[in-house]
Amino acid sequence: MTPFAERLAVAVQDKGPVCIGLDPHLHLLPVHFREQYAGLNGATFRQAAAGAVLDWGLEVLEAIAGVAAAVKPQVAFFEQLGAPGVAALEALVARAKAMGLLVVLDAKRGDIGSTAQGYCRATLDDTGPLGADSVTLSPYLGPESLRPFLDCCDAQGKGLFILVRTSNAEADAMQANGVAEKVAGWISAWNQSRSGPQALGPVGAVVGATVPSEASALRAAMPQSWILVPGYGAQGGSAADTLPCFRQDGLGALVNSSRGVLFAKPGEEARYQADHQALVREHALAMAAELKALHAG
Amino acid sequence: MTPFAERLAVAVQDKGPVCIGLDPHLHLLPVHFREQYAGLNGATFRQAAAGAVLDWGLEVLEAIAGVAAAVKPQVAFFEQLGAPGVAALEALVARAKAMGLLVVLDAKRGDIGSTAQGYCRATLDDTGPLGADSVTLSPYLGPESLRPFLDCCDAQGKGLFILVRTSNAEADAMQANGVAEKVAGWISAWNQSRSGPQALGPVGAVVGATVPSEASALRAAMPQSWILVPGYGAQGGSAADTLPCFRQDGLGALVNSSRGVLFAKPGEEARYQADHQALVREHALAMAAELKALHAG
Repeated sequence: MTPFAERLAVAVQDKGPVCIGLDPHLHLLPVHFREQYAGLNGATFRQAAAGAVLDWGLEVLEAIAGVAAAVKPQVAFFEQLGAPGVAALEALVARAKAMGLLVVLDAKRGDIGSTAQGYCRATLDDTGPLGADSVTLSPYLGPESLRPFLDCCDAQGKGLFILVRTSNAEADAMQANGVAEKVAGWISAWNQSRSGPQALGPVGAVVGATVPSEASALRAAMPQSWILVPGYGAQGGSAADTLPCFRQDGLGALVNSSRGVLFAKPGEEARYQADHQALVREHALAMAAELKALHAG
Repeated sequence: MTPFAERLAVAVQDKGPVCIGLDPHLHLLPVHFREQYAGLNGATFRQAAAGAVLDWGLEVLEAIAGVAAAVKPQVAFFEQLGAPGVAALEALVARAKAMGLLVVLDAKRGDIGSTAQGYCRATLDDTGPLGADSVTLSPYLGPESLRPFLDCCDAQGKGLFILVRTSNAEADAMQANGVAEKVAGWISAWNQSRSGPQALGPVGAVVGATVPSEASALRAAMPQSWILVPGYGAQGGSAADTLPCFRQDGLGALVNSSRGVLFAKPGEEARYQADHQALVREHALAMAAELKALHAG
């Protein structure tokens, strides 16, 4: 199996660094999906909403085929629907993989020992229910807690994106004063013996697009890492803000947009309700063009 | 609804500070359960294993009824079985609640904004699939990321256990140098305006039992917090090690044991296979007695 870092490099060279987040906000789906769970409650609601979310997600995958390098399902939106939601996530991930889209499972898991192994089987491992190409992880329990996931990368050609620096309110209260830099150090060390022909290893980092000054320093500290950049589009980051996350060769960053691609912007509501797939594809193409122009300019 | 901190105080005064972790290690279940999934693979395996895990879990709940104050299902062990595993978790949590056991859902979630809201619905919120009494959370994304969970505590009388200091290998690499103390500061501040008649608030902390010297300092820094103490029993912590996590009044700590209660110790294999419920109950009673003696002595 070609390692994740190399598979992602091929996909990004082909399509651009475009990752589409699959965040099924139930109140934002097109009306004909919302009607399937409106007025329902409890288990009946969750079953109906999970069915609608799966149908919607399959349509989104169709719409972005050939445009996106990767998709990033946000696990929380599926788990809030209980077992039927998790079944929908499984079906959606299987379909994305079959279409050749790389799957970044946004799960932000972090635990120790046999529990970490359990989460690895739940998310990444090909013998488990999802077998995603990569997964997001939290570093609070220390480097050893990430080891089972690293072993899976080595054995099955998978990838990780470890939370390093996020752009949300009050993230500084935890990540400032050298903490983010410490995690970057672990990541850099892990990649050194694991990098392929593109000088990219399996252990990526999550670095928010709205702190570009810090992004430059973290980019330099992790030269062999993919950086997953959330916050583009709806969360306030611009294409230019993502630039410090790229390497000189134009690789090394994967930019994610969720709401900005999936749903209607002001003035687009009628077109969205009439044909959300056409609008999603248009948003994704605009994102790809904007990121391409960034590197051409 | 009586707040979680007060409900836990009543349960601990009645039963002792005994929390039983529900960690279905598939290779450690009694043989007649293991036979239900031996030799199977893929989705067939997960469906069969989830069924066995639910049956096993219901028997464990029966065995510890009247002995434990709380149970702590370890979410990873269910999620590794995919949607059927999550359905088993839902059934097990519902049963525990119906039996009057407080549920500490060990999920270690941590995310931001609408995603954090999604995880709150997935775990804690009574309108969601589980509606656990409390949930474990990771603080890496900063204090604001925990806000949706805190709101649910305020609205529905729920509780949180935030990772502060863990006893696993290499935890120091993240939590030393003031990081754990910083998180303790957030917790203490949140509880100040939320504490009830027992001077205990909804925001608890996870503090490992194998670092007793630090536990004393963290106990003093969070006078109104419940502390969830893992690491007792199989993970190397002794009853005496948990003492610094208690307040002078004997409240404030909830001690968890998983493998040490659930499975056979050396020499117990035959009795375990013949009647695991009797052995589980015996282990739980021994744990309760040991913790009681600690406070009497």
